Amino acid sequence: MDIVDKMFQGDRLALARLLSILENNTPEVPLVMSRIQQNQDNGYYIGFTGAPGSGKSTLVDKMILQIRNNNLEVGVVAIDPTSPFSGGAILGDRIRMQNHALDPGVFIRSLATRGSLGGLSRAAKNTARILNASGKDYCIIETVGVGQVEIDIVDTADTTVVVLMPDTGDSIQAIKAGIMEIADIIVVNKADLKGTDQLIADLMLMLHENQRHSWWQVPVIATQADKNIGIKELFEKIEEHKEVLKDTGMLVAKRKEQRVSEFMEIIEQTLLDVILESQKDDSEFCEIINNVMAGLIDPYSAAKKVFGNENLIKRWMMRLSSEILIERRRVDA
Amino acid sequence: MDIVDKMFQGDRLALARLLSILENNTPEVPLVMSRIQQNQDNGYYIGFTGAPGSGKSTLVDKMILQIRNNNLEVGVVAIDPTSPFSGGAILGDRIRMQNHALDPGVFIRSLATRGSLGGLSRAAKNTARILNASGKDYCIIETVGVGQVEIDIVDTADTTVVVLMPDTGDSIQAIKAGIMEIADIIVVNKADLKGTDQLIADLMLMLHENQRHSWWQVPVIATQADKNIGIKELFEKIEEHKEVLKDTGMLVAKRKEQRVSEFMEIIEQTLLDVILESQKDDSEFCEIINNVMAGLIDPYSAAKKVFGNENLIKRWMMRLSSEILIERRRVDA
Repeated sequence: MDIVDKMFQGDRLALARLLSILENNTPEVPLVMSRIQQNQDNGYYIGFTGAPGSGKSTLVDKMILQIRNNNLEVGVVAIDPTSPFSGGAILGDRIRMQNHALDPGVFIRSLATRGSLGGLSRAAKNTARILNASGKDYCIIETVGVGQVEIDIVDTADTTVVVLMPDTGDSIQAIKAGIMEIADIIVVNKADLKGTDQLIADLMLMLHENQRHSWWQVPVIATQADKNIGIKELFEKIEEHKEVLKDTGMLVAKRKEQRVSEFMEIIEQTLLDVILESQKDDSEFCEIINNVMAGLIDPYSAAKKVFGNENLIKRWMMRLSSEILIERRRVDA
Repeated sequence: MDIVDKMFQGDRLALARLLSILENNTPEVPLVMSRIQQNQDNGYYIGFTGAPGSGKSTLVDKMILQIRNNNLEVGVVAIDPTSPFSGGAILGDRIRMQNHALDPGVFIRSLATRGSLGGLSRAAKNTARILNASGKDYCIIETVGVGQVEIDIVDTADTTVVVLMPDTGDSIQAIKAGIMEIADIIVVNKADLKGTDQLIADLMLMLHENQRHSWWQVPVIATQADKNIGIKELFEKIEEHKEVLKDTGMLVAKRKEQRVSEFMEIIEQTLLDVILESQKDDSEFCEIINNVMAGLIDPYSAAKKVFGNENLIKRWMMRLSSEILIERRRVDA
């Protein structure tokens, strides 16, 4: 029996090893992902996003307990705002893990930024897919800030929860503008702070003026995660949104979109990988790069030269067709 | 005389029209960028990044005045944290513009997120390049938050200034970890707030433990931008960093790296554009996508099919070679 089968049978060690395959982006990734494809949509994807300091991690922690109290299982993917350069980890998950370490119904994985954020969000999505495929009822994807990763994550989440807090200063208008478009549910956490009522009133007004869907009115929920206030209401709203998505056929439509966006990502990433690779060892490509570096040719004219070079393109194509090799074989990682 | 020539001669209207070409990503972009290539490195690039609410915009505003007091010209590209979905603008620049509207030595351009953040950061970089090519001594690139855009911007900035403020709560450790790797200068703004001394002490300790370059010790500067405190010191440090980069040959090396990264971006983006285009009108590619959407084939196996399809690849190649058409002709935009 290989580790994918073991994972399907509930083996936590096998699950952890599969997730390491994703993080390290080894050549087994395509194989693993095509093996789990039929099962990745069994669970439900919840996205949590918000600025640093909004108390989002505490909120997620309480949400885990809430889900467990309902006798359901949950996976968590947390994307840590660490250095994109050093790849240094933050260990947020290890601290949180302690609260759930003895609970076999919880699996938390934290991903630190390494290399491109594009690579990170792909690893995060695949991690979420494997967690759901492993039999979790929910997978929570937790991200920080407002940026590309969040946008990518919205593609993956069935319900997106945006966490705000009062008193974030002058740029609240700016933050809100982006939020209106991604939030299915808005949480105002730290709701004992000054400015809570005003923030909620502002949000209600903006939501009233910008209703995205006739079938869903985005709710604003006040929480104090550290005191467990508002958590049950939040979970109920997530459940309500889930039911609406199911009843309207939106969930099926989302799954279709998610599959296409996964496909397009794979196509794009494979192309980029091949080009980066040839930057190391294709002498003709390297010569063009050297000329660009020396300022002998401008980048656009150089690009024109590349795309006009049939032999170079042919070499890329040969690499491309050998890049993705999927067979239904064992994964012995 | 075409608008590129007019821009070189100081015509503000021509400059504004060139920047619109970039923002709207019209087919003239390659032509414009290859025309200005020889001049884009005349000026100096300063990056400002920091979380929303750190007072970064006020700081940049005061920096503009400081540069103008030294009788030098400055361009500003501000990336606004607006909705990546609606593309709605924030108008921050229009408010700030009023302070400098009558000053011909200042040119401010604000870019809102539209489409991908990748597209945004490319437009922002090109805007900065044109501002420098137009004869500005400095170009300030202002971004928000910690994300892909910031990382991209670091590639472009010669000196990167990271703006912090005291009292940003529990995630300061996380924020700092990323900052250490990108900051050439750290500013603690709103330095009258509680926690300033502690933050500076923490930063100094972290900097002491993580010195990146033997030739540059990252300084921490306390400012109160709204009261114009610390601005002169900041400008002097930027000048000092600039001199060090020049003396060590690092500036020349940076320019080389910047050209290569611009080239690689163009290659990648052109490829992605071609694939997105064929998603609309290539019947063979559309059929594969439909099968993915219906769940009849998993995305990785579908990607393998695509890269094994010689005819499809050939059609992509034909599009690629016709995508970048650069001639040294007039730009009548």
